[in-house]
Amino acid sequence: MITDRNQVTEMIIAAKVAKGLKWEEVAAQVGLSKEWVTAACLGQMALDAEQAEIIADIFDLGEDAEKWLQQVPYKGCLPTAVPTDPLIYRLYEVISVYGTTMKALIHEEFGDGIMSAIDFSMDIQREPNEAGDRVNIVMSGKFLPYKSY
Amino acid sequence: MITDRNQVTEMIIAAKVAKGLKWEEVAAQVGLSKEWVTAACLGQMALDAEQAEIIADIFDLGEDAEKWLQQVPYKGCLPTAVPTDPLIYRLYEVISVYGTTMKALIHEEFGDGIMSAIDFSMDIQREPNEAGDRVNIVMSGKFLPYKSY
Amino acid sequence: MITDRNQVTEMIIAAKVAKGLKWEEVAAQVGLSKEWVTAACLGQMALDAEQAEIIADIFDLGEDAEKWLQQVPYKGCLPTAVPTDPLIYRLYEVISVYGTTMKALIHEEFGDGIMSAIDFSMDIQREPNEAGDRVNIVMSGKFLPYKSY
Amino acid sequence: MITDRNQVTEMIIAAKVAKGLKWEEVAAQVGLSKEWVTAACLGQMALDAEQAEIIADIFDLGEDAEKWLQQVPYKGCLPTAVPTDPLIYRLYEVISVYGTTMKALIHEEFGDGIMSAIDFSMDIQREPNEAGDRVNIVMSGKFLPYKSY
Amino acid sequence: MITDRNQVTEMIIAAKVAKGLKWEEVAAQVGLSKEWVTAACLGQMALDAEQAEIIADIFDLGEDAEKWLQQVPYKGCLPTAVPTDPLIYRLYEVISVYGTTMKALIHEEFGDGIMSAIDFSMDIQREPNEAGDRVNIVMSGKFLPYKSY
Amino acid sequence: MITDRNQVTEMIIAAKVAKGLKWEEVAAQVGLSKEWVTAACLGQMALDAEQAEIIADIFDLGEDAEKWLQQVPYKGCLPTAVPTDPLIYRLYEVISVYGTTMKALIHEEFGDGIMSAIDFSMDIQREPNEAGDRVNIVMSGKFLPYKSY
Amino acid sequence: MITDRNQVTEMIIAAKVAKGLKWEEVAAQVGLSKEWVTAACLGQMALDAEQAEIIADIFDLGEDAEKWLQQVPYKGCLPTAVPTDPLIYRLYEVISVYGTTMKALIHEEFGDGIMSAIDFSMDIQREPNEAGDRVNIVMSGKFLPYKSY
Amino acid sequence: MITDRNQVTEMIIAAKVAKGLKWEEVAAQVGLSKEWVTAACLGQMALDAEQAEIIADIFDLGEDAEKWLQQVPYKGCLPTAVPTDPLIYRLYEVISVYGTTMKALIHEEFGDGIMSAIDFSMDIQREPNEAGDRVNIVMSGKFLPYKSY
Amino acid sequence: MITDRNQVTEMIIAAKVAKGLKWEEVAAQVGLSKEWVTAACLGQMALDAEQAEIIADIFDLGEDAEKWLQQVPYKGCLPTAVPTDPLIYRLYEVISVYGTTMKALIHEEFGDGIMSAIDFSMDIQREPNEAGDRVNIVMSGKFLPYKSY
Amino acid sequence: MITDRNQVTEMIIAAKVAKGLKWEEVAAQVGLSKEWVTAACLGQMALDAEQAEIIADIFDLGEDAEKWLQQVPYKGCLPTAVPTDPLIYRLYEVISVYGTTMKALIHEEFGDGIMSAIDFSMDIQREPNEAGDRVNIVMSGKFLPYKSY
Repeated sequence: MITDRNQVTEMIIAAKVAKGLKWEEVAAQVGLSKEWVTAACLGQMALDAEQAEIIADIFDLGEDAEKWLQQVPYKGCLPTAVPTDPLIYRLYEVISVYGTTMKALIHEEFGDGIMSAIDFSMDIQREPNEAGDRVNIVMSGKFLPYKSY
Repeated sequence: MITDRNQVTEMIIAAKVAKGLKWEEVAAQVGLSKEWVTAACLGQMALDAEQAEIIADIFDLGEDAEKWLQQVPYKGCLPTAVPTDPLIYRLYEVISVYGTTMKALIHEEFGDGIMSAIDFSMDIQREPNEAGDRVNIVMSGKFLPYKSY
Repeated sequence: MITDRNQVTEMIIAAKVAKGLKWEEVAAQVGLSKEWVTAACLGQMALDAEQAEIIADIFDLGEDAEKWLQQVPYKGCLPTAVPTDPLIYRLYEVISVYGTTMKALIHEEFGDGIMSAIDFSMDIQREPNEAGDRVNIVMSGKFLPYKSY
Repeated sequence: MITDRNQVTEMIIAAKVAKGLKWEEVAAQVGLSKEWVTAACLGQMALDAEQAEIIADIFDLGEDAEKWLQQVPYKGCLPTAVPTDPLIYRLYEVISVYGTTMKALIHEEFGDGIMSAIDFSMDIQREPNEAGDRVNIVMSGKFLPYKSY
Repeated sequence: MITDRNQVTEMIIAAKVAKGLKWEEVAAQVGLSKEWVTAACLGQMALDAEQAEIIADIFDLGEDAEKWLQQVPYKGCLPTAVPTDPLIYRLYEVISVYGTTMKALIHEEFGDGIMSAIDFSMDIQREPNEAGDRVNIVMSGKFLPYKSY
Repeated sequence: MITDRNQVTEMIIAAKVAKGLKWEEVAAQVGLSKEWVTAACLGQMALDAEQAEIIADIFDLGEDAEKWLQQVPYKGCLPTAVPTDPLIYRLYEVISVYGTTMKALIHEEFGDGIMSAIDFSMDIQREPNEAGDRVNIVMSGKFLPYKSY
Repeated sequence: MITDRNQVTEMIIAAKVAKGLKWEEVAAQVGLSKEWVTAACLGQMALDAEQAEIIADIFDLGEDAEKWLQQVPYKGCLPTAVPTDPLIYRLYEVISVYGTTMKALIHEEFGDGIMSAIDFSMDIQREPNEAGDRVNIVMSGKFLPYKSY
Repeated sequence: MITDRNQVTEMIIAAKVAKGLKWEEVAAQVGLSKEWVTAACLGQMALDAEQAEIIADIFDLGEDAEKWLQQVPYKGCLPTAVPTDPLIYRLYEVISVYGTTMKALIHEEFGDGIMSAIDFSMDIQREPNEAGDRVNIVMSGKFLPYKSY
Repeated sequence: MITDRNQVTEMIIAAKVAKGLKWEEVAAQVGLSKEWVTAACLGQMALDAEQAEIIADIFDLGEDAEKWLQQVPYKGCLPTAVPTDPLIYRLYEVISVYGTTMKALIHEEFGDGIMSAIDFSMDIQREPNEAGDRVNIVMSGKFLPYKSY
Repeated sequence: MITDRNQVTEMIIAAKVAKGLKWEEVAAQVGLSKEWVTAACLGQMALDAEQAEIIADIFDLGEDAEKWLQQVPYKGCLPTAVPTDPLIYRLYEVISVYGTTMKALIHEEFGDGIMSAIDFSMDIQREPNEAGDRVNIVMSGKFLPYKSY
């Protein structure tokens, strides 16, 4: 009996390691971006029926797991409020160092409001560079203004 | 007597409000990106002597403050580990929801290592969009591989 | 020299106590809801120039404070992550007890997404009741769906 | 052997996913609001014998689980003090941004006291809106005054 | 300029030490219990106009402080979530050791609900005892039942 | 193999639910107060051999569990430093709001020292009241004075 | 105006540094142990009138401070729950490493109960030793048994 | 398969309860102090081969466990940074109340440095006393001076 | 089914204890430093296919575990933010005491930037010394300068 | 009146910025390593009378400050348990990633015990390197063995 979406995530990861699959290949079969599909497999997004069937096929999941993939998960994938993993920590550090800067510049351009993390997409790419290739992360979120009422 | 870099940050912010300046204008006078210059003014980067003089002129800071601007600050600009401000929280939420995804995809492309937050730059732009303009944040950091030894 | 929006909040509160004003009266002069105007005075919303002038007049604030009222504040008004004040704690308790329920029912009705806290309004009213009057709080937030990409 | 109310909650959720039920349908069979019934199923309210029987029937729970449903649970359904799930976090953010405002306005109207979270009900509805449908949450709690003694 | 209720609390305590007053005497002048009056002086309850005048007279507070005493304070008087002071810690320990017991017995007697901390009074008395006098604390709070809706 | 006192607590609770017993009945068989016996069953007090035998009989525990009941447990029954359960939270809130008051009044009456949480007893009773029955909690602890040395 | 016992502690420490006094000399003038007198000066114990006068004389404190020395302080002298100072941390480490051991051995000898930290004294001595002198700390606290009731 | 030293600790404790052994008897068989031997059994010290064999015999542990007893454990035996168990909390409270005092007196006697928690021993004894027997804890640690370099 | 890299770490440690291996011997077989190989075995570094095969052979791991050794792990090996183990705590204490010193001296020599923890190696050696052998830890990390942009 | 060692640290840092001094020059005048002298100036070590006089001269401190420099400070120089500053965080990350490795290797070489952080020295040097200069940090601490007793 599956009682938790995390169990499905563990089944997916175990199957991925055993089969030697790549997230990019998984995403290609679903027909969506590697960012969204990976997040969905890792338990952060809900799949529709068709997507769930594809994922269940790829990772040999059973019918129960396929149903769980269509549930909206309880989101948040990190075990601690301040992440310990160095790759993820660097992203946290960017907010720690540049947080007030990002706030100041977005407000200067748009006024009071936020960049949505829901109407949001992300693209991660390798940028070749002679001094060492770079990781480029493009985040795009709709600006949502606070309005008075 | 100035005993702390934060006092200079407060002097800069108070002067900016009083004079009605924009960070973009400040950056233009320094001749660098608005992201780096704002972060420096907000106490996260050290200025060189020439830059410090320009900033001191813009904000009518004294000689002491000008020297402090050239010190390497103790970085970290947020009062709590989990930020309360909604704009900054959304960035934290992106890491909370997509953190393991970003980790998986960067490792899939580059192997073990991190995206540097030091050899790093950021660009924040408005993207016009009929359904509501979007905030685009481009982060670019050198990939640093772990190597065995 | 004002170096922080909190100083203006303190000036407003001190003046309000001294003058014996009511938030509802303040809101009426601004011409907006009591909820938004109070939040703005308490340092959670940015005012436009006209609104700032009205507030500065009501509370006898100087020109500097009037400019600060037009800055976007660093939001978050509580001193601890779990609030100690009983009135505010009860709201936190509602989330603690009903949080997964609200999540389940909103997803059942709308699918994956959130209720916006930005495109959001709130109305607080007294509901007369023989068994003791009730506080009614109506929150209205736009539903923002997650979409795949 | 069931040793913890959470085990029953897990059994209910697993059955709900497997059977594809809706909370609204479950509530209709119990004959009470979807908010209260969902909270009860999710381990936050105690059921009476008749209600427990209905729930046990719907989810094919055994006799032991039926007895556990009638126990008063240890309440609190969130794994962290600051919730990581975006939908639930937005509710927390509302308290973080509007907490002192709600406190000020309720005290202005009622004097010192609180809105009860016990003599309390909640109603969650979809409000159709051309600019995007809205989530409306109505909370109603009895005002409980502090009295001197 | 008084900007915070804590400033008034400090003024009261400083005056109490300087004048060598007792809380019991203060309470007698107000005509209420020593528990409620002390809590009010220590910034946890709001006074009415008449009570505030008496307190202001006793402690030689000015008009501004007298007005502040009539504001509903932000409650919570301890500097840390787990109190360090031994006397106060013992009370916290009682909850830590007996918390689930108190919960079990109150539910056994009353069903699901709580003992109100608002419709609540407390009485602290010395109980002479040959083996050493005892502190008796009687707490009385209205039982508030959860009801289904 | 039982390796932890909590396992025995879980066995007791599971048996209590299955058999539909009341703590008051359990206490009557042991011949002590319902407060102490419940605390002991819930893993906060050590039983002597005779008491352990009675408890083991009532709940059909084995010989191993009976021996564990005579061990002094690692005390503290709450999963978080600030309790999430509303009934238990109200007790915590009383300390948060009245903590410095209780400290002030006990010191005023007794001098420096504490109310013991060890040489301590508690009695919980229903007080009938037309405006709604009340929970009365009487705590009695020996005063222990600090002495200079 | 002194509004807090910590201000008196700061005055004492400042005077001690300026005058080059030793705690042992201070204790000798009071006629009590160096442990208790130092704790009292550092804001953890209340002095009687005579003791307060001696301390006020030694450190040139005024009349107000002398009165404050007779108040029961809010105890707890460390700025963080886990102490950062190496000397104090080592004591914390002893509890972290030997805590369950001390618990096991005291219960084996005395049964359920605690070593009082109120009816308690401490003696710190240098023990000459060829391999390097040792610090000896003797703690003596009355055993307080839990009793059933 | 044993994968963690804590599993061995649990096996030891379960056997001790089942056999009704005393730590003092266990220590006598090892031929060392009850303090060190108990700490070792509770997973805080590493045993040598001979000691491990004795312990494995006493508690009927297998060969695997005997090998694990010779591993240096990850030390720290308490589940929370501030201990909830009253006996252990009192020791923590002593540091909270007397921490700066101990620091002041050890520095006054020895200069800058610490009392070692490694070159350290402890002795716990019952001191008969007519007013109630006392627990005496003697800690002895080598003083380690900071030196300049 | 292995669902987590920690399971492999546990298998390695259990095998190491059972076989009585030394990390230095393991490293010699891999042909790399003992520091890097131990970190990899303890779940902090990813192995290549050849290294994974060697490790799997040494510890009798199966094919699944061998594949897991080639995954990039979620790094961070300590159960608490402030380590409780005395050996590891001393390293943390060095940062607590010398952190601002290290920051000041590295910036004085190199300007603004960091010592990389990725392009990093470590060497731990015994230094014979008559007054007691010493542990020497040499850390070497590439200096990464912040640059303006 | 100086009431806290931190005030002296602030005076030293302010004077250092104003005078444009280098820690290496300061250390040279004291005649000790730059690591120890910087730590002492930053409030982590106690100076002797002669050293204090030199430091007071260099930074134009008064007599009071000179006396304070000879006090043993309350150590610990970081504002948060997990440091936010990137340079200092990297050192913390090394412990997070390599902590169990360092523990394993030191125990393998020396047995149970610790590397002293008191009988300890540190040396920070630039290592020229064509691929970018490196920071070398050499830590040397006496090994202190746990012994049974």
